[in-house]
Amino acid sequence: MVRLEPETGVLRIGHRPGRDKRITTHVALVSRAFGASYFFLSDVCDISVLRSLAYIEDMWGKGLKHFSCGLGYMRYISDWKSLGGKVVHLTMYGETLEKSIEEVRGFKRPVLIVVGAEKVPREVYEAADINVSVGNQPHSEVAALAVFLDRLYNGEELYIQYEGARAVIEPSRKGKIVKSMGGENQ
Amino acid sequence: MVRLEPETGVLRIGHRPGRDKRITTHVALVSRAFGASYFFLSDVCDISVLRSLAYIEDMWGKGLKHFSCGLGYMRYISDWKSLGGKVVHLTMYGETLEKSIEEVRGFKRPVLIVVGAEKVPREVYEAADINVSVGNQPHSEVAALAVFLDRLYNGEELYIQYEGARAVIEPSRKGKIVKSMGGENQ
Repeated sequence: MVRLEPETGVLRIGHRPGRDKRITTHVALVSRAFGASYFFLSDVCDISVLRSLAYIEDMWGKGLKHFSCGLGYMRYISDWKSLGGKVVHLTMYGETLEKSIEEVRGFKRPVLIVVGAEKVPREVYEAADINVSVGNQPHSEVAALAVFLDRLYNGEELYIQYEGARAVIEPSRKGKIVKSMGGENQ
Repeated sequence: MVRLEPETGVLRIGHRPGRDKRITTHVALVSRAFGASYFFLSDVCDISVLRSLAYIEDMWGKGLKHFSCGLGYMRYISDWKSLGGKVVHLTMYGETLEKSIEEVRGFKRPVLIVVGAEKVPREVYEAADINVSVGNQPHSEVAALAVFLDRLYNGEELYIQYEGARAVIEPSRKGKIVKSMGGENQ
């Protein structure tokens, strides 16, 4: 699988088991589908999220190099920085995407993208190299992550080939065309 | 409020109360924040979704012209078509975004964007003028909708000014700057 530049990881913080299960699963699947190499879920290991992600990777191919859960969010952030990486926190309060994206590319370092749930601690704002907004309106961390990665990778992420896929979709205006290892199913 | 072209509505189908509450709320908030004029929730009126949307519109300004719920999804689709609108269904099986987006702009008609939950009935694929994929990997209807609107509106949607906002954010690299009607709060 071709890795896009810069390499990215996604850190999901503030996950509340039960309540956030589906949103966090969407964050994880967007991480995989939009070219990130790593997905980290801080503080808790929610087995339902990890199971969904594993299922998708088994069926549609391996996208992530690694996923991890359960460490404190500041630990993920400081570990990433100690390895020379940069940190971007997505928040509706941040600098505009348009003004930020060239700066992020200019880091020429792996980028950890932090996405929070409702309330993000101040130390995350301070630890981030830059806080970036995908619009200054409240919407969705799933949406913010997807648009950020789409801009960062110039849309190339939508064409990544995933290794080990048991099924591959052929784009179609009107129906479903899924190619499996054994042939073609409509 | 300036309306971007083409005008869009979002139809969320397949909502399961309880289970999909937060995902559907994110779909509604993305609709509002990314420039859609209408949000429709088919088959059920989930009060928790509508309450969240109303709260955001009250605080951050009016984005949607109208939202509606409870009618059958084919009714929303056929009503939209009977008024001369076009229909785009977002699905991982669809034609690529890159190949579709100019065609959608070329409609020169209001566009109803249909986003489903897990299983979308075949009649929706057939009723759509085009089925469009935001990547051919499974991820998130929230992400697909956001990226689709971001491409359709060329990023201009991130700068819409919302009428009646009681608070406005000033983009910031490091903190939170919120301007209220009465002044500035850090």
